[in-house]
Amino acid sequence: MPKSRPLLRGVSIIGVGMSKFGAFPEKNSRDLFVEAFKDMTGSVDKGLDPAVIESFYLGNFSSDLFEHQGHTAPLLLDAVGLTPIPATRVENACASGATALRQGVMAIASGLYDVVLVGGAEKMTDLPTADVTDTLATAADVPFEISAGFTFPGFYAAMATAYMAKFGMKPEHLMNVAIKNHDNGALNPNAQFGTTIQKWMEGRIASAIKKGKPAPNWTSIWDFLHDGYANPIVAWPLRLFDCSPITDGASALLLVAEERAREFTDIPIHIIGSAQASDTALHNRLDLTSLPAAKLASSQAYGMAGISASDVRIAEVHDCFTIAEVIASEDIGFFAPGEGFKAAEDGMTARLGGKPINTSGGLKSKGHPVGASGVAQVFELWKQMRNEAGERQVPGDVPLAMTHNVGATGSTCVVHIFERRE
Amino acid sequence: MPKSRPLLRGVSIIGVGMSKFGAFPEKNSRDLFVEAFKDMTGSVDKGLDPAVIESFYLGNFSSDLFEHQGHTAPLLLDAVGLTPIPATRVENACASGATALRQGVMAIASGLYDVVLVGGAEKMTDLPTADVTDTLATAADVPFEISAGFTFPGFYAAMATAYMAKFGMKPEHLMNVAIKNHDNGALNPNAQFGTTIQKWMEGRIASAIKKGKPAPNWTSIWDFLHDGYANPIVAWPLRLFDCSPITDGASALLLVAEERAREFTDIPIHIIGSAQASDTALHNRLDLTSLPAAKLASSQAYGMAGISASDVRIAEVHDCFTIAEVIASEDIGFFAPGEGFKAAEDGMTARLGGKPINTSGGLKSKGHPVGASGVAQVFELWKQMRNEAGERQVPGDVPLAMTHNVGATGSTCVVHIFERRE
Repeated sequence: MPKSRPLLRGVSIIGVGMSKFGAFPEKNSRDLFVEAFKDMTGSVDKGLDPAVIESFYLGNFSSDLFEHQGHTAPLLLDAVGLTPIPATRVENACASGATALRQGVMAIASGLYDVVLVGGAEKMTDLPTADVTDTLATAADVPFEISAGFTFPGFYAAMATAYMAKFGMKPEHLMNVAIKNHDNGALNPNAQFGTTIQKWMEGRIASAIKKGKPAPNWTSIWDFLHDGYANPIVAWPLRLFDCSPITDGASALLLVAEERAREFTDIPIHIIGSAQASDTALHNRLDLTSLPAAKLASSQAYGMAGISASDVRIAEVHDCFTIAEVIASEDIGFFAPGEGFKAAEDGMTARLGGKPINTSGGLKSKGHPVGASGVAQVFELWKQMRNEAGERQVPGDVPLAMTHNVGATGSTCVVHIFERRE
Repeated sequence: MPKSRPLLRGVSIIGVGMSKFGAFPEKNSRDLFVEAFKDMTGSVDKGLDPAVIESFYLGNFSSDLFEHQGHTAPLLLDAVGLTPIPATRVENACASGATALRQGVMAIASGLYDVVLVGGAEKMTDLPTADVTDTLATAADVPFEISAGFTFPGFYAAMATAYMAKFGMKPEHLMNVAIKNHDNGALNPNAQFGTTIQKWMEGRIASAIKKGKPAPNWTSIWDFLHDGYANPIVAWPLRLFDCSPITDGASALLLVAEERAREFTDIPIHIIGSAQASDTALHNRLDLTSLPAAKLASSQAYGMAGISASDVRIAEVHDCFTIAEVIASEDIGFFAPGEGFKAAEDGMTARLGGKPINTSGGLKSKGHPVGASGVAQVFELWKQMRNEAGERQVPGDVPLAMTHNVGATGSTCVVHIFERRE
């Protein structure tokens, strides 16, 4: 069983960066990572000489199938001019980013390095959509699950129906998550979908009128979200707006040994909890309404940090589908089992609510370049904790925050807890 | 630049295991890893309760393209019944195994874990040979090198011709490496090619006679190795017997915090040097006769261990091609530049020579399941250092040994140094 022994050295984050997320036919993962790296460099308060960086971890799921390129870490490192330091790619499906962060933490805590670069990158849009779905499916237990006909929308639809049956949730409840995350993403200049669902709907109406077609008969976004053409069912009860998009993007952050953090910034963010757990694949599990690995990793991370869920101000969780956010909000202990969908309905998880979740827009609206997502979650928290999140800044102080990053249907989950100490 | 700071905690190896290497149409990487894991479990002198294992690192290059399966670490961990501990896949092309070992070392040194399982696995033979070559090519800089027509035999042929031009080596010198490694592999029951080249040749002659065909006109293995049918040119000057094979296989080892090693064995092997370096891809380099990352990683590992090349009794180096072993023997400092091929000719690197290299048979004869190779190198040293290598045991004592594991053409190199303390 995972233990929660203390790290022998503390680790702090002193810079973060990300590329714009979206579909960029002219860019490969190297181009995107260079953007994220430059953005990170510019974020270091007291300036950064990249020559101080001693090692590099890259979270990347499948450059192999997306770009027909493996051995990706040294190539991306070379693109930012940092060879010959060690470069290591970490792959844990959609949790690759947080897993890479965790290796960076251990590399510093081990004593070997003082300054470690952590990146995430994924270039997904070169392939036709069916091939993207097939590539993502390699994160599952292929011979037992994919060969039987499952895809990821199918997995999460199964989780949603199990949750609905157990807790009385309706498909409409999931729409609250989509609306909230698009509201947040509309305030995030890096988001793939920088627009609210309201504006999206208005755009569709305006476009129809402009083309001389009859305007759709939507009186509210609820009509829009129930329209089988505007928001088609992907795998019932999940519709298009319940699913995160296919995204190109990269992210970066810089870790330093805690005792050296003040060389780089007066507002370092310390990593006070880091935990990871694995699980058997979904087809072997008895209950689909929570992810055991997420509960275990959260519990371990809280134990390591010496805090509880009630102490955490905001979280970025892995909302690859809307149902995933509902379940995540329970697995990390923000809400009791069966209460997550009600919290979303009540506005509790909104930016101005008591427990804001995914102020960045989440994977749903910000976009989900899979290997980059776990690192980009930290980008958002770093900005929020330093009161630098601009229009999407949550009210009040954010001294404690957490990330929850999931691989596949929870065969991997990685949780980190962050603290600001001024 | 890579530093060589000390680890905050020492790390020891207390068990090793591997599957048979070869082509196994009926087995996938899970089956192979289960074999390696069981073999490892049986190697622990004082017995092992697998429940003490706290985390898992897997070296695997491209299950994605070889098996159309990603997120491989939790699947392999589940196959040996060890979920929910953390499972993390590490990918650095053919250096994935040693890179995984290095993460295991840091995980323990960080204080987070006391007992860490490190594995390597690759299932390569399901694909047609041309697709294997194409998959291996993804370890290179694809848009700049593979798109220009290179493959790995081509890369190493270019290195061989550069070396020949600079140092006066002839293609025949490389055959000494192949002969030696097949001699060693013939003594290794786990090797893919458990036969000497002499026996191989004799088998071909016997087979011809049995079929009533004229017996080949070979008076020695030199005739055999020069025969364009028996040993065809793959990429001049490299012939078939200069190339490592396509292999299915898995390997495993168990790391513990040094202070706990005696709970498991009275003969632990301590990791006293661990270093890794990266490099720009081959097409950007001015000199092809050595690998800068290998020289740098070796130098760092020696510095960390506080020893020099002359102190090391034996080494397992990355002989994906015969020329790679010659260059490696110089990069790790066993021989001066331009002297490696002479050392092979003189028998210096033979099992009974002064500086034995690849007593296991190396990748050349033992086989090269790419993600497993870096871990399997340690298997060999562990056996030799504990005087348990059977027929292939080197004479005298082996208190110090090292591994050298390369990704692609040296974009990654990982070096480890091991010490036996009784």
